[in-house]
Amino acid sequence: MAVILITGGARSGKSKRAEMRTRAFPGQPVYVATAEALDAEMEARIARHRARRGTDWIEREVPLDLVQVLVATDGGGARLVDCLTLWLSNLMHAERDWESEVNELAGALLHLKSPVVLVTNEVGLGIVPDNALARSFRDAAGIMNQTIAAAADEVEFIVAGLPMKLK
Amino acid sequence: MAVILITGGARSGKSKRAEMRTRAFPGQPVYVATAEALDAEMEARIARHRARRGTDWIEREVPLDLVQVLVATDGGGARLVDCLTLWLSNLMHAERDWESEVNELAGALLHLKSPVVLVTNEVGLGIVPDNALARSFRDAAGIMNQTIAAAADEVEFIVAGLPMKLK
Amino acid sequence: MAVILITGGARSGKSKRAEMRTRAFPGQPVYVATAEALDAEMEARIARHRARRGTDWIEREVPLDLVQVLVATDGGGARLVDCLTLWLSNLMHAERDWESEVNELAGALLHLKSPVVLVTNEVGLGIVPDNALARSFRDAAGIMNQTIAAAADEVEFIVAGLPMKLK
Repeated sequence: MAVILITGGARSGKSKRAEMRTRAFPGQPVYVATAEALDAEMEARIARHRARRGTDWIEREVPLDLVQVLVATDGGGARLVDCLTLWLSNLMHAERDWESEVNELAGALLHLKSPVVLVTNEVGLGIVPDNALARSFRDAAGIMNQTIAAAADEVEFIVAGLPMKLK
Repeated sequence: MAVILITGGARSGKSKRAEMRTRAFPGQPVYVATAEALDAEMEARIARHRARRGTDWIEREVPLDLVQVLVATDGGGARLVDCLTLWLSNLMHAERDWESEVNELAGALLHLKSPVVLVTNEVGLGIVPDNALARSFRDAAGIMNQTIAAAADEVEFIVAGLPMKLK
Repeated sequence: MAVILITGGARSGKSKRAEMRTRAFPGQPVYVATAEALDAEMEARIARHRARRGTDWIEREVPLDLVQVLVATDGGGARLVDCLTLWLSNLMHAERDWESEVNELAGALLHLKSPVVLVTNEVGLGIVPDNALARSFRDAAGIMNQTIAAAADEVEFIVAGLPMKLK
């Protein structure tokens, strides 16, 4: 079992790095997308990621029930979850109890048999946002990243496509 | 004597790390808060930090005159200053000469006998802010961080709760 | 030949570090400024950088045609390009095809004889910007940084004036 967390800024090369780490495990890789193709910007992005990844992945689209999908796909190839920040955003929009769900994910990660590579974003290194909602989100994202990093076997911070080992 | 600077983004685990580093020194730790409980959001945050820290700390609230408090508490246990970014913001609001005060702090840190652990924030890794005040603040914060890091014996950059050693 | 990329946040000490790295090479250093003195804020910043650098540099001001200047100055001392983020912004304002130009730069860097030290900014570690233009810019900056980092021999990430070696 291996749990790998890949964090970094926007367009830092996190997904590409995560794909490489996922492919290094034996078995057919499973792509767990937390994004929904709700607008053209997102659709284009999803298509671009899929083109790069290739067609040999099993694909799951899961905006909310991440733990269930990780449990359901356990025992097969490695799972790539892309990305936790969007999952958190989905949970908050759906008014779910994100703190419980994050803790539940952290707990589940300790017991899964097949590897899991999770992508997340660092969003707290800019100036304090003006609006309260953005502040709440970046606080939640920071707490989530700490919680999942604590449960992970390996954590990498990606800058300009290059990994720094945090754990 | 030891001066340790802990930097990182919002909710990256800086305060928790700084508390651990402070407690590792002998003597009763001193918590030097630069925050004032001016609104409910801040009050809740202060209460949460205090609950985690425990009650065995000496507490000082010092929005502006940081050097004086560090001198006055010198010779006892280690001091945890949480945080420099808020102190800078307080200085700017009070229209004090922040550059002189930062330089004075850097100078004082070289001569104190008891350890000092300082928490600060990285705020310059997002997109350039629209408004000039936010730009001035992030410039000032960057300059302050460089100045204090140069005076420190150790500097750690925290991401997702995990420290990277910068110095 | 050596290509060194220095990245980091605003006021993190990138330019100072890049000047030091450039001066370490033999020959008269060449300062390649991508900034134009269009307003008072920028003029003050340019003057401050020049004062720190000293007067023994050859200076080139090149908002757009960076590759041409690097080719034209090749064979002499090391070049310091300060900075790529502004160059990218200039390209986008001029409605040039920034992706081709970035790829052309990456290709050119592999063939130059004299060293090149390039400064860039990390802008993708804050909250997602509200406006689409800022989002496009930070996406472009992230892609540029990955591309140039891949072509560089050395990459450093500067936080609080202190370098972390990425490559």
